[in-house]
Amino acid sequence: MRTKQQNKNNNRGGAPIKIIPLGGLKEIGKNMTVLEYRDEILIIDCGLSFPDDDMFGIDMVIPDFDYLIQNRKKIKGMVITHGHEDHIGAIPYLLKELNVPIYGTRFPLGLIENKLKEHGLKGRLHPIKAGQKFRLGVFEVETIRITHSIADSICLCINTPAGRIFHTGDFKIDYTPVDGETLDFARLAELGSKGVLLMMADSTNATRKGYTESERVVGRTLEGIFRRSQTRIIIATFSSNVHRLQKIIDIAVLCKRKVAVSGRSMVNVVELAQQLGYIKIPANVLVDINKIRSIPDKELVIITTGSQGEPMSALARMATSEHKAVKIKKGDMVILSSTPVPGNEKTVSNVVNRLFEKGAEVIYSDIADTHVSGHACQEELKLMHSLIRPQFFMPVHGEYRHLKRHAEIAQSLGMPENRIFILENGDELDVNRRQAKIVKGVADAEGVMVDGLGVGDVGNIVLRDRRLLSESGLIIVVAAIDRANNRVSSGPDIISRGFVYVRENEKLIDEACDLAADILERCCRKNVRDWNAMKTAVRDGLKTFIYNKTMRSPVILPIFLEV
Amino acid sequence: MRTKQQNKNNNRGGAPIKIIPLGGLKEIGKNMTVLEYRDEILIIDCGLSFPDDDMFGIDMVIPDFDYLIQNRKKIKGMVITHGHEDHIGAIPYLLKELNVPIYGTRFPLGLIENKLKEHGLKGRLHPIKAGQKFRLGVFEVETIRITHSIADSICLCINTPAGRIFHTGDFKIDYTPVDGETLDFARLAELGSKGVLLMMADSTNATRKGYTESERVVGRTLEGIFRRSQTRIIIATFSSNVHRLQKIIDIAVLCKRKVAVSGRSMVNVVELAQQLGYIKIPANVLVDINKIRSIPDKELVIITTGSQGEPMSALARMATSEHKAVKIKKGDMVILSSTPVPGNEKTVSNVVNRLFEKGAEVIYSDIADTHVSGHACQEELKLMHSLIRPQFFMPVHGEYRHLKRHAEIAQSLGMPENRIFILENGDELDVNRRQAKIVKGVADAEGVMVDGLGVGDVGNIVLRDRRLLSESGLIIVVAAIDRANNRVSSGPDIISRGFVYVRENEKLIDEACDLAADILERCCRKNVRDWNAMKTAVRDGLKTFIYNKTMRSPVILPIFLEV
Repeated sequence: MRTKQQNKNNNRGGAPIKIIPLGGLKEIGKNMTVLEYRDEILIIDCGLSFPDDDMFGIDMVIPDFDYLIQNRKKIKGMVITHGHEDHIGAIPYLLKELNVPIYGTRFPLGLIENKLKEHGLKGRLHPIKAGQKFRLGVFEVETIRITHSIADSICLCINTPAGRIFHTGDFKIDYTPVDGETLDFARLAELGSKGVLLMMADSTNATRKGYTESERVVGRTLEGIFRRSQTRIIIATFSSNVHRLQKIIDIAVLCKRKVAVSGRSMVNVVELAQQLGYIKIPANVLVDINKIRSIPDKELVIITTGSQGEPMSALARMATSEHKAVKIKKGDMVILSSTPVPGNEKTVSNVVNRLFEKGAEVIYSDIADTHVSGHACQEELKLMHSLIRPQFFMPVHGEYRHLKRHAEIAQSLGMPENRIFILENGDELDVNRRQAKIVKGVADAEGVMVDGLGVGDVGNIVLRDRRLLSESGLIIVVAAIDRANNRVSSGPDIISRGFVYVRENEKLIDEACDLAADILERCCRKNVRDWNAMKTAVRDGLKTFIYNKTMRSPVILPIFLEV
Repeated sequence: MRTKQQNKNNNRGGAPIKIIPLGGLKEIGKNMTVLEYRDEILIIDCGLSFPDDDMFGIDMVIPDFDYLIQNRKKIKGMVITHGHEDHIGAIPYLLKELNVPIYGTRFPLGLIENKLKEHGLKGRLHPIKAGQKFRLGVFEVETIRITHSIADSICLCINTPAGRIFHTGDFKIDYTPVDGETLDFARLAELGSKGVLLMMADSTNATRKGYTESERVVGRTLEGIFRRSQTRIIIATFSSNVHRLQKIIDIAVLCKRKVAVSGRSMVNVVELAQQLGYIKIPANVLVDINKIRSIPDKELVIITTGSQGEPMSALARMATSEHKAVKIKKGDMVILSSTPVPGNEKTVSNVVNRLFEKGAEVIYSDIADTHVSGHACQEELKLMHSLIRPQFFMPVHGEYRHLKRHAEIAQSLGMPENRIFILENGDELDVNRRQAKIVKGVADAEGVMVDGLGVGDVGNIVLRDRRLLSESGLIIVVAAIDRANNRVSSGPDIISRGFVYVRENEKLIDEACDLAADILERCCRKNVRDWNAMKTAVRDGLKTFIYNKTMRSPVILPIFLEV
């Protein structure tokens, strides 16, 4: 794809460092970035994304690993910025292909270890500390403490022969984080002064004005609610936000309440975070969710999953009376310490409505400050740009509108437009001390869909079929045909699924069956021998008939057996 | 359902007026209310709702008309509060069953007339004016001007022998409406002083604090954008909001721009509103959308449908380069004068991203005040309650959380809890001067699903099939069986749709086919004659095999032909 001239240009200023995002651009999710210098590769993160509404039956989408498989020998390792699913969720699928050594802080590494266990895998996991420096081949990796909605987040400064590459990871600027681990402004400023060649920075909230509030705000809101309440409190939040879990536990202790935990991921995270020391729970505070009956309502807090209204989550099961241990009753106080991720608004309000109907008081982020975002708004982004002052800038982690707005923010701070690069997944940015340029489409980077155990075996045609089936169902016309005598020896029969109530539409189905029989008979009389032609005749005839009668277009599937 | 005792109680204070909501409670949409006094019925509105995500292939949901069909002789007429789809959309379906005379102001009546024409129907439409009083049987209907996001909205005070019933319709309190038609505070206060027995009031925004801003705010924002812009402007909004259309046209004229209109419903509404005098457009301002090429960019505004990101709408077609007359180009200014209805967030941001990618500047409600709601927030609801001061109160139009919050607002103003009634669709509220009580489940009121020409022929089983088909597709096992000799004479063959790419999974399909053949042969050997037993054996065998291999559960459909 590249011409000699381009190569020559790039060589002015030395061999370039190549940045190849395999995910996270023009989308929310599956963040993964490849850094390549000559014949060495470093990977940052390996996340999944959740399926769109039109990806019927798909469990998750992961990056395409082909580029890495083709260049497996170059790979020196992977560094993890933090433990959210959109940064670590695809690791088991990568490790099935390539046993890449993984470097990360202890909390995300603990989450990865659990995840690998579920897949029957063992990774080469190397714990590091925020602030630590280490070398992977040509890459000198420096990790710097950053604040985000999950414990133990870092950003990365990667020193390469081409220059310093700075990657923010996901971040917000929280001056008063719950764990006291403030971000290292001094080091960020120092790196900025030394000179950063390229910055990649989180764009998730780039369209939002102002600042994201500190996690402490949520603590204050919750404390107010807890202090006023004389009833049982059930609080749903993201299991990965251990700072918030710690805060909830602290307030529970303050208000002399016991804490029970519900939902598989919540139980797992609380256990892991306790083991690793990220959550501290005094003795005799935790109670088994199955033994809450002995605790008076006003002395109990239940922390649960389901803050996104997920249908099988613990909170959803409470709302539909399917939860074994927790029956919602009049007076219960339910707090959703979250906001709906775009696309989840309806499932969340379904759960809220059901809880209200059961007599619970429900408090959610529309009503009180029960949640803050984990991502930097515009003023925070400006601060990060002002500290790092990179030579080149590449907005990452966001839909196009977020990347675009982030680019505009950089421009508003004085960065020339020609130093800002909005890439697509699979593009390559070649950067050296003199210049940067995009090479289009270097790697395959369309998302790979995971459905059950199948990775990549569901594609657009299968999805199109699922969509068609979902819209108007299916009509099967089956017949046995005696080829020797060229006659229909059995059938045609019509079987339908997802089309109409058959019992109430017998006439329609009978007429369709008669029509199919007529068409088949005509084909036999005309001595049509090509089965595809017969199938097309039946399909077209029925399609028109059904559409005229119902204005629907079910999938019509003629199946003929030769006997 | 009702006991003699209850009837006796009701008779203290005279015969009750019965209120039976057929839609609009515990849901957003399909608003329809029945008022019944002895053997006379008055209907308020007849709306549709849009399908939930799990209603595969469903076009819309309408109220169940059975109660009205059973009581057809009692019906005196229907009164329409305003012309939004959730208040008039189901009228054609009702009129196919019952030719009810319809009373409404001119604008909604014009919309209804267009709608009926599309269905090949002619209704008995009676135009009325805001402020007018008329009698339908025992019901003395008084219409009162109210402000909402569509022209010519009214609220209703219905005088019955049991007392005055007040229905707000949909409303907000806009002191400065674009058309100058302010709501009639004096009359509302007068009715309050005379004594209102029961108020039904819009709860859509009951969970929102404060006030909804005036439509004028949008005008100011748009004027600012128009004045600054030196490029083509494309603005998407709700076609029914003729006030906003008027404002856009006024600003266009002010800024010396021509106006083109795109999208079927937008063209229809502009035409109707012009005919009826609700929109005034100076001569030589409107240009044909197909002739915009002759107009310089900075002298053109295109008003379009698609503010909800609807995939087939004009704006979506512009975003995907499928619009014949409008090609988006760098510098175009696109304004979304709307907010996404819950559930549409993702489709809207898809369209926004595509427009950005084409180089357009996109302004939407996150960025500027390009939209205001049409519904009353908490402080406006308090004002309405304070004016009407009803004896009994029934919150309507909203999910349970909205109804609940609205009830709490009424309580906060001093209304005793036992005078507030939250009903479900199909319940009946019996009210007389002394008391009110709920009779549960008087009418069938589950929504009726419309799919193409079919009304009510798709139910839960059909939807379940569509869902199952959409999740993992379908495997059909077909075989011809010679019953006389009890052997498989042809097949089994396997056909799949929406399951996996067959070419890349031949081995899996072949193995499944072999397994089905084994099972069938075993059945024949054992002389199993019951076809259902054979089908079950094949289905169960394949189900386990497929699940173990793929962790998926496609629909498995064995079809056997006797030959």
